[in-house]
Order: sequence, then structure tokens, then C-alpha cells
Amino acid sequence: MKVALITIGDEILIGQIVDTNSAWMAHKLTLAGFEVREKISIGDDASQIRNTIDEAFKRVDVVLTTGGLGPTKDDITKKTLCDYYGTELVFSDEVLDNIKGIVSDPAKINELTRNQAFVPKDCTVIQNKVGTAPVTWFEREGKILVSMPGVPLEMQWVMEAEVIPRLQAHYKQEAYLFKVFLVSGYTESALAIHLTEFENNLPADFGLAYLPSPGIMKLRLFVQGEQRQPEFVRQVELLEKKLGNALLCEEDIPLEKILGNILKQKGLTLATAESCTGGHIAHKVTSISGSSAYFEGCVVSYSNKVKTSVLNVPGSAIENNGAVSEEVVRAMAKGVAQLMSTDCAISVSGIAGPDGGTPDKPVGTVWICTQFKGKQLAQKYQLGRIRDVNILRATNYAMLQLLEMLK
Amino acid sequence: MKVALITIGDEILIGQIVDTNSAWMAHKLTLAGFEVREKISIGDDASQIRNTIDEAFKRVDVVLTTGGLGPTKDDITKKTLCDYYGTELVFSDEVLDNIKGIVSDPAKINELTRNQAFVPKDCTVIQNKVGTAPVTWFEREGKILVSMPGVPLEMQWVMEAEVIPRLQAHYKQEAYLFKVFLVSGYTESALAIHLTEFENNLPADFGLAYLPSPGIMKLRLFVQGEQRQPEFVRQVELLEKKLGNALLCEEDIPLEKILGNILKQKGLTLATAESCTGGHIAHKVTSISGSSAYFEGCVVSYSNKVKTSVLNVPGSAIENNGAVSEEVVRAMAKGVAQLMSTDCAISVSGIAGPDGGTPDKPVGTVWICTQFKGKQLAQKYQLGRIRDVNILRATNYAMLQLLEMLK
Repeated sequence: MKVALITIGDEILIGQIVDTNSAWMAHKLTLAGFEVREKISIGDDASQIRNTIDEAFKRVDVVLTTGGLGPTKDDITKKTLCDYYGTELVFSDEVLDNIKGIVSDPAKINELTRNQAFVPKDCTVIQNKVGTAPVTWFEREGKILVSMPGVPLEMQWVMEAEVIPRLQAHYKQEAYLFKVFLVSGYTESALAIHLTEFENNLPADFGLAYLPSPGIMKLRLFVQGEQRQPEFVRQVELLEKKLGNALLCEEDIPLEKILGNILKQKGLTLATAESCTGGHIAHKVTSISGSSAYFEGCVVSYSNKVKTSVLNVPGSAIENNGAVSEEVVRAMAKGVAQLMSTDCAISVSGIAGPDGGTPDKPVGTVWICTQFKGKQLAQKYQLGRIRDVNILRATNYAMLQLLEMLK
Repeated sequence: MKVALITIGDEILIGQIVDTNSAWMAHKLTLAGFEVREKISIGDDASQIRNTIDEAFKRVDVVLTTGGLGPTKDDITKKTLCDYYGTELVFSDEVLDNIKGIVSDPAKINELTRNQAFVPKDCTVIQNKVGTAPVTWFEREGKILVSMPGVPLEMQWVMEAEVIPRLQAHYKQEAYLFKVFLVSGYTESALAIHLTEFENNLPADFGLAYLPSPGIMKLRLFVQGEQRQPEFVRQVELLEKKLGNALLCEEDIPLEKILGNILKQKGLTLATAESCTGGHIAHKVTSISGSSAYFEGCVVSYSNKVKTSVLNVPGSAIENNGAVSEEVVRAMAKGVAQLMSTDCAISVSGIAGPDGGTPDKPVGTVWICTQFKGKQLAQKYQLGRIRDVNILRATNYAMLQLLEMLK
């Protein structure tokens, strides 16, 4: 069944926010066997909303909209859908009761919040258990439109608890088989050349897609239809064999989860000492629920003073080699492992940019040291010129470097 | 001039990646006076690409596409644009020379990378100075299409250095006047009620949009046309007066930059001691270039052992009150300020979830302490149930709490 996602809101068209909703929705819908054909973002503009829905229904069976349901003047989705479906807004006591259950102090419900209880007359209202904007479900000529709030938390609850189960009950799907392979040590084109023969021999209804990210290539193998399971298993085995040691993981999980799983499996603990990454590695590691089982903590030593006083980096190491050097990252890793009594440590010192570069240490120069039970590996990386990207890349390379030691 | 952004790639439609490109592009185009009318994401599918471009040109003057230019089989944008414009691919020595200048070892250029030098015959080729995929610019019947790589770093360079300047030279724009106001202490509906009279008196061609984020409301006031400048200034003054003390900043910058600016201005230094935020506050603070002027460092004390041994939190404070308590965050803030000799400190301890909650300390319970020259403020927050969201919200509330003390 074909689906279009329509995100409504001026703030998206002027680039004030990044639309993370539609990736989340697309992922969940794909897993549920739906085919997301297009994602469209448009403004809070009644005629554009109507026209976009009309055009989308020429190509898909289901339209899911998010946004434009807030209590303020610029939010016009609910009214516009009334016009589109030729109905009117009516007050719903049931929705008001739901709102009263949501807000912390029902006595304080103001007029604008109360207005959220107006809903289109001819539609199915789905109660939003985590926010004040009701969800509405329209059907006409076999096509379905669901309007949801744009607040990510609310949309996610509504999709999982209500919309996807109802869509699955309404349609019968032919599921997609797919598998993700995380591969390290190859560039996109080198990997493609390595897999030329495999790709040439793939059955015509199979697909193989490449998705590069810093230090890692994601491969996605896919085919539609449960009956292709035996051939799918055969192709997965061929691909695994071809990838060999470069295959990091056969699940689409973030690097920090791969690292966490291995640490937990082996009963090891980790601490990080971060300069240019500024705590981003610790943030990634602790973004995984349950990371307290293996993560002790981190010292962000942004200043040299903290490097020497907290991490015991010899002042002479900094004076003689500079803060971005092999000697300093080795001392940082040793220091933090001692301070927090851990089996493993990661340390990073580099020049994230855009300032701070010198001719022999240009912006993007990063030293990473990883330590496992006393043994150390220190490597230098030459990254790019963009601060944010350098922080992300250094974070990934640091985790990959430790993974390599733990293999 | 009206613009449509078309993002091409199956990985977007299955939700494997979040499209951050189009928000970045929309922001830059808006500032340059262009009106982004729609953003569309579609798959690597030739007929869908052709149809989407065709439909978009009925509504807009400029189409900017990203993606589908990689060296592998699943990337078909270049070939499809040839079909759409009735032209063919020809080999360009000039592009090959550019590629040789990009890759670290030109001797190692493989066949797939060499294929990147094939470009459509009837188009303007723009050299991509930061990647191997060439940028192509097509014109037909007064309408422009530019095809760019989807790699964010490459797209950003191409847009800033080439595409926006060329579009600006090609069209004359009527610029948008707009201003962003960051407001703290209001919910969306409470702020809307506070501003009812202001909104009712706004001239009809003005707009005011609300964008909620954790702890902060963003307001955007806008009007088209340079000649509205005097009225725009008048309305900005009215709005400033109405917002009063709740007005945090009149620039669309992140909280960590507002905080950084004040610390720099006042010559103060900062350290953080983080438990449930896991280094995310330090990451945010150091994401600002130049933060080394005021940020000394951070201790992520994820385990109780690190709280006591590194931050000097009394073991009895943890035993008697639990790690998520006023006593512990006060000791953490004091400890990190002493350890790193800073004027200010932020400490956070909470239950990010999904596990670890108890009846009297449910998931989402977070204690935050901020310290400024010895004085402390400790507050308890009851956040939600989603781990990632709790980490983001605690980060924002912690920075807001320190800002409040520094006012």
C-alpha cells in the first residue's frame, strides 16, 4: 500500500527546524510493510494544503499529515481539512475530557487550549493520550487521510499506539524483506568494486543500496514478498562471505550500541577523556539505555589546566608536543583509566576548527588513543574543515578504533 | 522567486537517514530572498524523478535537487536528468582534472570514481571543489534546475560558493524582513493569549509564527518588501515591549551560544558535572567555536564511584538521599567548580529512562544545580518518559537556569 507523508508548517520551509518526524515515520511504516512513496513539506497555506493532498491522492492510497494543529492562529490544518472534506468543526466533550487528563492543572485550561476540543464533524477522532491536539482520521473513496500533531513525542505515540495498528488492520500487506550490513574499512566506490560480481549475480527483483557515513558504509539488501525468503537467505550468506572481516554488524544500530554490546558481553568498563569532541563520545555512549553497566564516566579536558590537574598529563608533554599530539592523548587515556579504574579508555585531542589551525597542524588534525587493559593504540586522523562534522567523525573513528582493539 | 527542493534517495523514504540538507538549504535560500514553496523527498526511481520535476515546475521557477549522484548503481539522477532534458552523457576532462585534485592519491582513482567525470552534454557544469560528483545546471523555458550531491558537506559548499550567488545574479529578489525572538517562561498557548492584542493589531501583510522547543518559545515576525522597513521596526518595538523580561534573545541562535556570549562578556568560566545528561551539556557548550575562552571542562560522573572519587560528593549524601537528589547535585556543582577552578558550574542528576524509575522518583525526575561565584540554585524538574527527549530537555533547562542566575 502506497503512502505519502505531508509535513505542514512554515518553520520547515524557512529552514528553522529540521524535519526528523518523517524519517521516523518512514522507518516505522516500512517495517510495517507500507511503501512510503514521497515525503512533502509545505507551508501553513490552505490552498497549498488542499492541492498537495489532492495531487498526492492521485499517486498513493494513504496520506499522513503532521503539523498545523497547535492552538495558535498560524495553525490551520484542522480548518483546512474541514473544507477539503466538506464538513465543519464541532465541539467534542470527549476530547475536552481527554485534554483535562493531559494538562497538569485542569483548572488552568485557557480558551486556546479549550479550542483544541473542536474537531471535524465527519471523521473518526483518535484521542491523543500525550498531548492536547486530537488526531483525525478521514476516509473517502477508499483513500485514508490521518492528521497528527507535529510535536515528535506526540506523533510517535499516536503512530505506534493507534495509526499503524489501524492501517495494518485496514489493509493486508506484502512485507519487505531487508537486512542492513554495517561495513568498516571501505570507501563507497572501493566497496562497490569489491561487490561487482555479487551485484551482477543478484536476482533482478533484489536491490542493494549503499549509504555512506563517517568510517562506516551501510549496505541494505532488500526484496519484496515473503515467498522470496529462501533466496533472500542465500543472498545474505553470499554477501556475508564476500564482506568477511570488514562486516561489523548485521543490524542497523548505531556504533555506540555495537560498542556497548561488546563491552557488556565481555564485562568491560569504559571511560573517555575528551578535548575537541567536548563530551560528544560520552553523550553517544550514554544515549544507549543501560550504558551504566559499562560506562563509568568522562573527563572533558577542554583547557590544558584540566588536562594536567585532573588527568595527570605531564605539563612537559603539552609544552614539548602541543595539546594535539600522540604524547598527550596517550597520557589522557592512561589518566582517565586510572582516575575511573576502567578496563578501557578512549582519548581524543584535535583541532575541530574553524580556528586554531597551524601549518603543521591544520584544522581537522585529530589524535585518538584507545586503551584496553594497559595496551594502547594511538593514531592520527586528518579530518575536514567543518567543526560539527569533525566532532561527529572523530566520535565515530574513536569508537571504531576501540572496537578494532576489542575484536 | 519560488523554489522547490527535491531530495532523491531510497534511504530517505525508508527512514534510514534524516534529511538535514533541506532545512539548511531552505534557511540559506530564505535569507537570500527566495521563497521555498515545497520540499519533496522521492526514491531513486527514474519515472518518479521525471514526474516530480515536471509537476514542481508547474508551481515554481527553480528546482534544486540533491542526491543520487554517487558512483554506485543505485544512483541514477544524472542519467535521468539527461533523459528529462533530451541530452546524453559525455566525458569531461575538466571534471576528471577536478576529481584528481580532490582525491588524496590520484593514482588510485578507480573506474567508478572515473565515471563521475561523465556529465550531461547540454548543461552548465559547476566544478565541485570538495567532492567527486559534479554539479549540473540546466535552463529551459526560463526555468532553472540544479542537481547537487546529497553529501551535506559538499552540498553546503556548492550552495554557498556557487548556486546561491548564481541564482541571485539571475533573478532580482524582493527580500523578506524577519526577526526571531526567543522567549522563556511561557507555554505556546499562554504566550498566544499574552500577545492577543498585539496580533490583532498587526498589519494584514505581517505574519507572526510560534515555534515551541523545550523551555523556549521561538517567535518569528515577518513581512515581505524592503519598503515595509519603517512599519517593521515599529512592530518589533511593540513586540519587545510586550515581551518584557521574558525576552531572552533577538537572534535565532542556540541557547548554548546565548550562554556562551554572556560568559564571554562577563569574563566568567564554566565547568559541568553531568550524570544523566552524560556529557550532552558539555557537547552543546563546546559545539560553539571559541568556547575554549570560557569552558574549562566537564566530569561525566555516570557511576556513583566517580561522583565520590572525582567530584568529592560525600558517600553519605548518596546513601541517604540517592544519586538523584538536591544534596548530590549541590555537591557535584561544588565539586566540579573546585576541581576545575571555575566561576560557574552546572550539575545534573536524574533518571533519563526508560528504566530506573521508582514510585517517588519516576522516570523523568531530574535535579539541576547551577552555581555562580559560590551561590547555588538547585531545582527539581519532572520531565517525560522518552530518554533522548529527557536528555535534550534537561540540557536546555540547565542552561536556562544558569542564564537566569547571570541576568
